[in-house]
Amino acid sequence: MTTYIAPTKDMQFVLHDLLKVTQSDIPGYSDLEADFTSAILEEAGKITSEVLAPLNAVGDIEGCRLENGVVYTPKGFKEAFDMVCEAGWPSLALDPEYGGQGMPGVIGTAVGEMLNASNQSFAMYQGLTNGAYASIHAHGTEAQKATYLPKMNNCEWTGTMNLTESHCGTDLGLMRSKAAPQDDGSYKITGQKIFISSGEHDMSENIIHLVLAKINGGPEGIKGVSLFIVPKFLINKDGSLGARNGVAVGSIEEKMGIHGNSTCVMNFDDATGYLLGDAHKGMRAMFTMMNHARLGVGLQGLAQADAAYQNAVIYAKDRLQGRAVTGVENPDGPADPLIVHPDIRRSLMDQKSFVEGARAFAYWSATLLDKSERSKDADALGLISLMTPVIKGFLTDEGYDMTVQAQQVYGGHGYIEEQGMSQFTRDARIAMIYEGANGVQALDLVGRKLASDGGKHVMAFFAMVKDFIKENESDEALKADFLEPLKSASKDLQTSAMFFMAEGMKNPNAALSGSSDFMHLFGHVCLGLMWARMAKAASAALAAGASDTEFYETKLATGRYYMARRLPATKLHLARIQSGADTVMALAAESF
Amino acid sequence: MTTYIAPTKDMQFVLHDLLKVTQSDIPGYSDLEADFTSAILEEAGKITSEVLAPLNAVGDIEGCRLENGVVYTPKGFKEAFDMVCEAGWPSLALDPEYGGQGMPGVIGTAVGEMLNASNQSFAMYQGLTNGAYASIHAHGTEAQKATYLPKMNNCEWTGTMNLTESHCGTDLGLMRSKAAPQDDGSYKITGQKIFISSGEHDMSENIIHLVLAKINGGPEGIKGVSLFIVPKFLINKDGSLGARNGVAVGSIEEKMGIHGNSTCVMNFDDATGYLLGDAHKGMRAMFTMMNHARLGVGLQGLAQADAAYQNAVIYAKDRLQGRAVTGVENPDGPADPLIVHPDIRRSLMDQKSFVEGARAFAYWSATLLDKSERSKDADALGLISLMTPVIKGFLTDEGYDMTVQAQQVYGGHGYIEEQGMSQFTRDARIAMIYEGANGVQALDLVGRKLASDGGKHVMAFFAMVKDFIKENESDEALKADFLEPLKSASKDLQTSAMFFMAEGMKNPNAALSGSSDFMHLFGHVCLGLMWARMAKAASAALAAGASDTEFYETKLATGRYYMARRLPATKLHLARIQSGADTVMALAAESF
Repeated sequence: MTTYIAPTKDMQFVLHDLLKVTQSDIPGYSDLEADFTSAILEEAGKITSEVLAPLNAVGDIEGCRLENGVVYTPKGFKEAFDMVCEAGWPSLALDPEYGGQGMPGVIGTAVGEMLNASNQSFAMYQGLTNGAYASIHAHGTEAQKATYLPKMNNCEWTGTMNLTESHCGTDLGLMRSKAAPQDDGSYKITGQKIFISSGEHDMSENIIHLVLAKINGGPEGIKGVSLFIVPKFLINKDGSLGARNGVAVGSIEEKMGIHGNSTCVMNFDDATGYLLGDAHKGMRAMFTMMNHARLGVGLQGLAQADAAYQNAVIYAKDRLQGRAVTGVENPDGPADPLIVHPDIRRSLMDQKSFVEGARAFAYWSATLLDKSERSKDADALGLISLMTPVIKGFLTDEGYDMTVQAQQVYGGHGYIEEQGMSQFTRDARIAMIYEGANGVQALDLVGRKLASDGGKHVMAFFAMVKDFIKENESDEALKADFLEPLKSASKDLQTSAMFFMAEGMKNPNAALSGSSDFMHLFGHVCLGLMWARMAKAASAALAAGASDTEFYETKLATGRYYMARRLPATKLHLARIQSGADTVMALAAESF
Repeated sequence: MTTYIAPTKDMQFVLHDLLKVTQSDIPGYSDLEADFTSAILEEAGKITSEVLAPLNAVGDIEGCRLENGVVYTPKGFKEAFDMVCEAGWPSLALDPEYGGQGMPGVIGTAVGEMLNASNQSFAMYQGLTNGAYASIHAHGTEAQKATYLPKMNNCEWTGTMNLTESHCGTDLGLMRSKAAPQDDGSYKITGQKIFISSGEHDMSENIIHLVLAKINGGPEGIKGVSLFIVPKFLINKDGSLGARNGVAVGSIEEKMGIHGNSTCVMNFDDATGYLLGDAHKGMRAMFTMMNHARLGVGLQGLAQADAAYQNAVIYAKDRLQGRAVTGVENPDGPADPLIVHPDIRRSLMDQKSFVEGARAFAYWSATLLDKSERSKDADALGLISLMTPVIKGFLTDEGYDMTVQAQQVYGGHGYIEEQGMSQFTRDARIAMIYEGANGVQALDLVGRKLASDGGKHVMAFFAMVKDFIKENESDEALKADFLEPLKSASKDLQTSAMFFMAEGMKNPNAALSGSSDFMHLFGHVCLGLMWARMAKAASAALAAGASDTEFYETKLATGRYYMARRLPATKLHLARIQSGADTVMALAAESF
């Protein structure tokens, strides 16, 4: 059985040493004193470690059960959900106007990491609710907001997003779900949606489905798609629950992982729906939700990697096998622990340096989102938009690889379900797929985000890296171990961006053939930047006489590993990008 | 539901265009005329596509069932096993003296690829039998060989290998299973073994367990380990089955994949065993089995990748989603097929170029093994010994990654068990672990094989690459697309080997910190060499006026992709290797 301990100390390091949140002028940040965030993180850490983590295997083994139209979540999920909601965790970063606690998103991100690390399937019930909340909050009428948000604020009502149909996922213009306008301004929604996470369950008294459908007679394709609010139970004028709406679960999907989350086929049969946002502008409203969701999914990649890593470390210290090549280290035992072996170290360092770098990246991104929303900062919005596909795609691809590595540390025991390491791998696998498969993220990055606003945001990113290097060049230790590798990697990123700009117009396939490589290259540079910044922060703490020297020295050593061993991947990605489309597109489809 | 079609055409290309088997002086090779091998491959292709592939999902869903000490394999497995054995497939490459057909191992390898691609769990029942057969064949007395081999020849009796105990896998010196000598020369074996593939089942009338145990009073540690033959049913003097032996299945492991294979906990309770080979020299006898097994596991990596790839191609051609960026390609449909998109192409080319390169590598390796065994060629034996960990480790790591990529092509549908793509990933995962986890393969490569016989074999490999390049330099097209990249990659391999030699003595951790990278670097150079050779063969066929120009041109284009996009990974591995042990070993164990 696996365990999870929230890494609150490292989270505090990121918030305070690295991001220095209290010094920020983003509204709400000045309240984030270290004692305050520590109290929140410790409390969230407690419930995730003690309540949610033990339910992780239960969810995997039991899964969800559909009986007579009712979905039963795994044993203990409902009680834990009530506990989490009563403690107010879902409303942490939501709008006080509707009952939320109004904390900055960066705190919600830290707590979200814990929820997803301890029990991803469980966290998704809340995660989808937050996404639906965000969409109604941004695009709903005052009446809609007043009706739904206070109840969704703390998951009294939960939410879902209904996009996919069996024949269309990415290409939503092909959808067949229909919306027939009614005299009272509502619509009758008919169609079938698949892969609906948390689509039906027994955890909340109502479920607010956000559903994409085409209004009869509207434009063809994606321009005729609208977004609707379709509650499971209709809501009476007084706010009480009314009749059951025409929406029902058809079946539960049998999946590779996240068994604890009910992934449903949802059938809409003349279900009453209410337009959310403008008619035929459904994609816009959906993207509000999706951008939040994509950052959340990136966080899942990091979270699963951390949970798997923690268990790999425990096993590597505990399992006795072989002797250190440099001499016996555990003379009283029959063998040395796995952790003495260099290849096990390499694997653990891969994992550790990814997890900590990704954490810094995710929280920094959350501050950008906070800045864009709370300070109405257009540059921050541009930057976070640019990086959203990187966060989603890179952190989930790498996060998955790390769960595979963590599983590998267990040897044969890693393949046995009882040990729990397989679950991390199987659960982490979905994050590369949902909310836009990672190939689509790469396409979004190269085909849309890179050149948006005339390339302004990527230029801002380059300038930021350059300025950081320049400002710190006089620090010789930082320069050799961190700034030089960062400079080199950043140059690879710029060279590839230039390649796309030069080729993009005359040969779009050349850019798109390198899109996944570019996404990874970008991700590595972001983590390289984070590690350089963390190294600076750690050095500063040591110079200032911090008592916990071991923590800061470990931070520096872990960063050096990333810069020396992981960051050079940028050169491979660049080489692939520069090889262009010729070899990628050489074959006729029939030749595969 | 997935399908599998044996790639007989490509197999014929490897055997005849590339390896030119009939021109070899290895005994038995001159019989391998194209018509003959074609007939065998077509026949094996038929049974694997029509009988075994449809049972693959059945095995995954049903798994094996233990009831009152009896293990029931999935529905249809027993009938299919009888069919495969009656057709003589297991005995294809076995010794005619004991009923085998005596064909070269390279043919057995091609058929083995099909078996493992169509149904890995099923193929393992035979695969383990072949391994046990090889060990008895090499180390058994004449009486033992006469008793067991004729029945194991065609899986009338099956075999297993019992190494692992719950507290020791790699470090077998820690084992606790005991062997008490009896007056009649036999032993009483007592102990518990775990993770025993095909340990108990209903497919054969007897199961011949090969079991590692320590003879009471023998040397401590690995030097006191002996190998024993422990039949499930004792064998009477007349060869008929006698009493049930003291060996019984304790439980079936619940695993991430290969559910169709019964992975058992085996309990030995005063079971009668017969020493195989010399006392206390069990590891030597076991390694005969293990080296065969490791090549077989490498083949599984390739096989699962091919099966997954084939289905990804079908889906990519069938699924309509989005439009080609260069203009509509399917004007009559609502969207273009996935295969028009560059990032899908990239993924399919990654898979295709790996599968075909790996196939050439595996079959070439089989010819080396044939040469070492049939021609008693010590150089061939040295080379195949050197490359065994590369075949096992690289082909299974990469093979797994390819199943993940194939699954990704399906988007959300790839995560749904019903589609079958998850099974390829889950089944392929074990190959990175069993028969020595890939980290152990890397250790074997760098710590043992690289310097064996004074580095003679790795030098021979370098010379072979160099000679090939030199011989073909006048071919300008080959030179630019294939020889130059190969030269550069081979240089990276040499540089890293030199690094290990220089550092190895004074800092063994420096070599071992780069062991996994070296294994991958080596694997890429091997595939690069194979692709250069295949390009030469394809060009020659085209120059000779071969009618199937599309096949050969596709081969060349696929090779160019590998050289341009995959082979440059050698530089990343080299950079990591050269960074040494400092960052890898920097932390105290407590700092993780």
